[in-house]
Amino acid sequence: MRPYELIKAKREGRALAQADIRSFLDGYTRGEIPDYQMSAMLMAIFFKGLTGEELGAWTQAMLNSGEVLDLSDIPGLKVDKHSTGGVGDKVSLSLAPLAAACGVPVPMISGRGLGHTGGTLDKLESIPGFRVDLTVADYRKMVREVGACLIGQTATLAPADKKLYALRDVTATVDCIPLIASSIMSKKLAEGIDALVLDVKVGSGAFMKTQEDARVLATTMIEIGRHVGRKVTALLTNMEQPLGTTVGNALEVDEAVAMLEGHAPADYTEVTLALTAEMLVLGKKAKDEAHARSLLQEAIQSGAAVRKLEEIVKWQGGDPRAVRDRTRLPKAKAVTEVAAPAAGFVTAIDSEAVGLASVALGAGRERTDSLIDPAVGFTLLKKVGDPVGAGEPIVRIHYNDDARLADVSRRLQAAYQVGPSAPSTRPLVLERLE
Amino acid sequence: MRPYELIKAKREGRALAQADIRSFLDGYTRGEIPDYQMSAMLMAIFFKGLTGEELGAWTQAMLNSGEVLDLSDIPGLKVDKHSTGGVGDKVSLSLAPLAAACGVPVPMISGRGLGHTGGTLDKLESIPGFRVDLTVADYRKMVREVGACLIGQTATLAPADKKLYALRDVTATVDCIPLIASSIMSKKLAEGIDALVLDVKVGSGAFMKTQEDARVLATTMIEIGRHVGRKVTALLTNMEQPLGTTVGNALEVDEAVAMLEGHAPADYTEVTLALTAEMLVLGKKAKDEAHARSLLQEAIQSGAAVRKLEEIVKWQGGDPRAVRDRTRLPKAKAVTEVAAPAAGFVTAIDSEAVGLASVALGAGRERTDSLIDPAVGFTLLKKVGDPVGAGEPIVRIHYNDDARLADVSRRLQAAYQVGPSAPSTRPLVLERLE
Repeated sequence: MRPYELIKAKREGRALAQADIRSFLDGYTRGEIPDYQMSAMLMAIFFKGLTGEELGAWTQAMLNSGEVLDLSDIPGLKVDKHSTGGVGDKVSLSLAPLAAACGVPVPMISGRGLGHTGGTLDKLESIPGFRVDLTVADYRKMVREVGACLIGQTATLAPADKKLYALRDVTATVDCIPLIASSIMSKKLAEGIDALVLDVKVGSGAFMKTQEDARVLATTMIEIGRHVGRKVTALLTNMEQPLGTTVGNALEVDEAVAMLEGHAPADYTEVTLALTAEMLVLGKKAKDEAHARSLLQEAIQSGAAVRKLEEIVKWQGGDPRAVRDRTRLPKAKAVTEVAAPAAGFVTAIDSEAVGLASVALGAGRERTDSLIDPAVGFTLLKKVGDPVGAGEPIVRIHYNDDARLADVSRRLQAAYQVGPSAPSTRPLVLERLE
Repeated sequence: MRPYELIKAKREGRALAQADIRSFLDGYTRGEIPDYQMSAMLMAIFFKGLTGEELGAWTQAMLNSGEVLDLSDIPGLKVDKHSTGGVGDKVSLSLAPLAAACGVPVPMISGRGLGHTGGTLDKLESIPGFRVDLTVADYRKMVREVGACLIGQTATLAPADKKLYALRDVTATVDCIPLIASSIMSKKLAEGIDALVLDVKVGSGAFMKTQEDARVLATTMIEIGRHVGRKVTALLTNMEQPLGTTVGNALEVDEAVAMLEGHAPADYTEVTLALTAEMLVLGKKAKDEAHARSLLQEAIQSGAAVRKLEEIVKWQGGDPRAVRDRTRLPKAKAVTEVAAPAAGFVTAIDSEAVGLASVALGAGRERTDSLIDPAVGFTLLKKVGDPVGAGEPIVRIHYNDDARLADVSRRLQAAYQVGPSAPSTRPLVLERLE
């Protein structure tokens, strides 16, 4: 069928043949199908969706638009994790060395922060010397010899997705679950993974505001995995408040190492362990979750996890001493504290507002070309459920430039809600899907 | 709001502010808003529609994208007719001189044929010398002095619609009633009319296949008229078979003059009189339909209608003698006849199939750049309800080239259905709306 007929068929809610999806996406990637036809198709998909078969074909076509890394010569099942993005989400920094320390090879291609959410690459680059732009050959070598490698997206992987994402971004077709799911999956599959665990964040600071939406996204990605022959499991995790107690690049690296040393905040520790345990089971290094958790505890207690992170940092050009001696990480010149707006209990912390305050401080990006300061950020001194006195410090701001300090403080104070009693707590892992 | 936000708002079914619609359409016409954003907007409109207010603003913005002719210095209410297009629809050729003969100025900008439907301009050009590319100054002069002028679309009128139509044509957003209605209305309003009568064809050979769809389109256009302060009335007319007995340019001119002379087929005569009567009432030359019909009969019987057509032909460079002496019109070299497929009664004639057969013969256009032969076409010897004997001629083909004659004959024979009894007849004018 011609592009026109395919748009019309989708508009009418008819399912497209796999060969037609392939030729449409290939034509678009090669520039033969213009942006205006693709944007009409995307809007039709927004309204009419894609069936499981169509989604498999769509993802496969995006995947095949570029290089697909083949890591099958590396022993073991390669497993990665993908998070839909949260505030204070430094899970990858501890999960990758933990899984690798337990024998699961982790080929991880990550992104940068944008808007209210941070990015793994930015966090890693706060370690002096750390490079995320390795060649594919070095990446492959590290996955084989170190068991993990964390790099940035390359131009050769899933180029159709890059082109498509730029178009979605200007045609109001970003928030469309089949398009989100196929975008994520095509990039992840291009890494050469055998299995994937998804961390779908739910809550005010997350892309998915409700558990129901999160479930649809997770189910969609699991279904794509089934169509392309990759095992995918998903945890829906709570993002009603920032994860852990730090927001900001070097501060989050500090907290991630603390997790590997066994003394990080409980929420961050638990989400990391739950996701890494999934990876150990998917990678057939543990027979079930309980077994996986005991292996993870062992890797923490023996120091194997921290040593694995040192090894990764060293291989990627960073200063491995910064792992144990965090005074070697960038440090802001000054700190100040934000006082509680009232006495009582913290009942909510608006993650998105905290994330946007971190952007205002310079820790995150407003636009893709914004410069960030690795040293600045927040320490959350109080979290949901904690009692606070009137005027008691709730957040410590680490800053280098006081130009927007008043604005940042105001935003943080507004992000905290204080009430007369502690709220009931929701579980960190809301649901598991496979 | 930025273009992105406007697309998103429409996608979510929110109504856009009039100023936002104006800036979006203006930005698009000037090339500041790219095709891919407009096509996403068009697809969102396809799914979510436009409110009456939005549609008024959308049409007004398209209208104001170019020149809007001001004929207010010409005495009388200027009234035009628009048809959604049918097979054998030569109504404009007789309606314009009739209305003008009765004192209603008719500023008519028409189109060319494409696909299975013919075009008024092509029909007029079969009169030797007739020109449809007059200047705006000549057009204005003719409306004032002759009372009617029939020309082609100019580049200066509603350029936004031209650009938009080209985009809709490749993004599967043509068959969307608010977009169809605003496209027609913006072009018609640019002519400088005070009122408009719509002929919305219903049936197998029409754009609107059901009376319900036709009613929605008519109501939408009437509503736009209300928003922009122009009186619009509509007749839904039957297009279950071709109108009259001729299909083909010179053949249809011949039949149109016959109508002005009072001896054309009843269906074509009746549709023309009903529409022209509407114009006389809208133009305040008749107090009601009955009065209008008596004025029209008078113009036919006195010869005023034919003389008005001669005057129009002369002013537009054509040979006025061809009006009364139709041997001066182009004539095909040969004729042949198609035999009835069976004996009985004609129960249906598929208009679209007849129209496509006329394209195959060379009377109509496959693509906008196809050449047409003004002389060729069909005389329908039998129409729905007529008895036929086995092998009796049903259609006479007027042809110059026998290359596709067998194909054309086969198509015509297939377009006729013959059954054991005459079908019940449906009225020609199905419904009147205002």
